[in-house]
Amino acid sequence: MEILEGKQCVLPALLARQRKFQLVLIKQGSNPSRVGEVVDTATQQGVPVKYVSAEKLSAMAKGRSHGGVAAICSEKPPLPPEALFEHCEKLHEPALLLLLEGTEDAQNLGYVLRSAEALGAHAVLLKKHVWSFEGVAVSRASSGAFERLPLVQIENPEKELLPLKKLGIKFWGALAGAKRTMFDANMSTPVLLAIGGERRGLSGAMREMCDGFFHIPMKAGTSSLSMSHAACLVLAEALRQRRGKLDPE
Amino acid sequence: MEILEGKQCVLPALLARQRKFQLVLIKQGSNPSRVGEVVDTATQQGVPVKYVSAEKLSAMAKGRSHGGVAAICSEKPPLPPEALFEHCEKLHEPALLLLLEGTEDAQNLGYVLRSAEALGAHAVLLKKHVWSFEGVAVSRASSGAFERLPLVQIENPEKELLPLKKLGIKFWGALAGAKRTMFDANMSTPVLLAIGGERRGLSGAMREMCDGFFHIPMKAGTSSLSMSHAACLVLAEALRQRRGKLDPE
Repeated sequence: MEILEGKQCVLPALLARQRKFQLVLIKQGSNPSRVGEVVDTATQQGVPVKYVSAEKLSAMAKGRSHGGVAAICSEKPPLPPEALFEHCEKLHEPALLLLLEGTEDAQNLGYVLRSAEALGAHAVLLKKHVWSFEGVAVSRASSGAFERLPLVQIENPEKELLPLKKLGIKFWGALAGAKRTMFDANMSTPVLLAIGGERRGLSGAMREMCDGFFHIPMKAGTSSLSMSHAACLVLAEALRQRRGKLDPE
Repeated sequence: MEILEGKQCVLPALLARQRKFQLVLIKQGSNPSRVGEVVDTATQQGVPVKYVSAEKLSAMAKGRSHGGVAAICSEKPPLPPEALFEHCEKLHEPALLLLLEGTEDAQNLGYVLRSAEALGAHAVLLKKHVWSFEGVAVSRASSGAFERLPLVQIENPEKELLPLKKLGIKFWGALAGAKRTMFDANMSTPVLLAIGGERRGLSGAMREMCDGFFHIPMKAGTSSLSMSHAACLVLAEALRQRRGKLDPE
C-alpha cells in the first residue's frame, strides 16, 4: 500500500482507475470548493472518505504538499508486456512508444512521463532496474501522467519487445555517435524510441534490437542533455513529424 | 562566498573564470588521476590547493557527492544587461536568448541551463525573483553549464531588454493560447524566446514586449509540460530551424 498526497496526485489516480483505493483522507474543515471533486469522485467509485485532523494527516504524509488530501491505495500496477502488444494493436494512430534504460531520479522520471503524455506517447517502457522508484514522488512530479500513462516493466527486451516488431513498430535508438540526426529519422510510422541511461547510454541488448540510430544535434563542445530532456526532445520531434511536417529527406 | 562541491562543479567553475577562488580543497589520499585536472587548473590560476581529511571535507560539504573535491569561491556574478547588449553585438551567428520568468526549483533550473548550452543559447535571462536560487544546487544539476553560460538578471524588462530590439532581435513569447505553433515561428533570425512561469505563464510586462507568440503543440486533453521541458523544446526547435531545416510556411 502507498500513501498518495495532494489533490494533484489523488484525483488523477482515482480517475485513472488503475490503483485499488482503501481510503481517501480529507482534512477536517477543508474548503469544499478545493476538495469537493476528490470527495465526489471517491464516493462515486465506492471509496470510503474519512475526515481527519490536520495533525493526523500531516503525521501520515511524507511531504508538506498534501494540502489536506491524501489516500491509501495499492501501487500502480505495470502493464504486462503481453498487454502492451494488445494496446498497440488497437491504436488508431501510429504507435509512439518510449523506452527508458535509466533515470536520474524520481522527480525527473515524473517530468519525463508528464512530457511523454503531453507529446502523445502511447506507453512508456522502463527497464526493470529503473522500476525501483518511489511511486509517490514520480506521481507528484508527473502531474498525474504517471497515473494515466500505460507503464510497462521490461525485464527481457528480446523476449518481451520482439513481438512489437510484428506490428510494424520500428525500433530507433538514441546514440551520441550515430550519423543520422533525429530530424532525419522517420518517426511518423509506428516507432519505439529507446533512450539509454545518462552514464552508460544504450545497452548492448537494446542496440542489437534497434533498426536504426540517431543522435540529438547539439552545439559542439558542450556537455550533453539530461536523460529527461533528451527523451522530451525526441518525442517532440516525433510529434512534429506526425503533424505532417516531416522534412524532405 | 559559496562552497562548490564535486569535480563536476569545481572544474568547470575554474575553467570559466567567472568566480573568484579563495581555496580549492582536496581529500588527502585522493587518486591523482581523479583530482589531477582540478589541482593543475587551480595551480595554473594561482588558486591555493589544500589537502584536508575526509572528515573535514564532509563536514564542510552540504551534499554527499563531493567525491573529495570542494572549493571556496565567490558567487557567480550575473552579466549586467548592458554587457548583454555588447555580447549579442559581437556574435557571429543570429542571437539565441532564453528568458525565464519562473522556475520549479534549483535542480530544474540547472537542467534548463544544461540544455540551453547544449542547444546553442548565447545567454539565459532570469527575472529578478527567479535569481534567488541556490547557486551550488543549480551548478551541480547543470553539469557546468551554469558556470559557462552568460546569465543576466532582469529587473526592469522594458528598460533592460528594449535595447536588444535595436540589434534586430525579435521577441517571441510562448503562450498556451497562441494561434501559431512553435514550428511556424521563424527562430532562424536573432531571437529572444520568453517562457513564463508554470503557474502564471508570461507576465503582462513581457507580453507587451513580445513581437509574436507561439504555442508548443501538445496532445489534447493532457496536462502540460514543465517549464524546464518547455524551454528545452523551444530551444531545440530554434536549433532545428537554424540547421537550414526550416519548414516552408
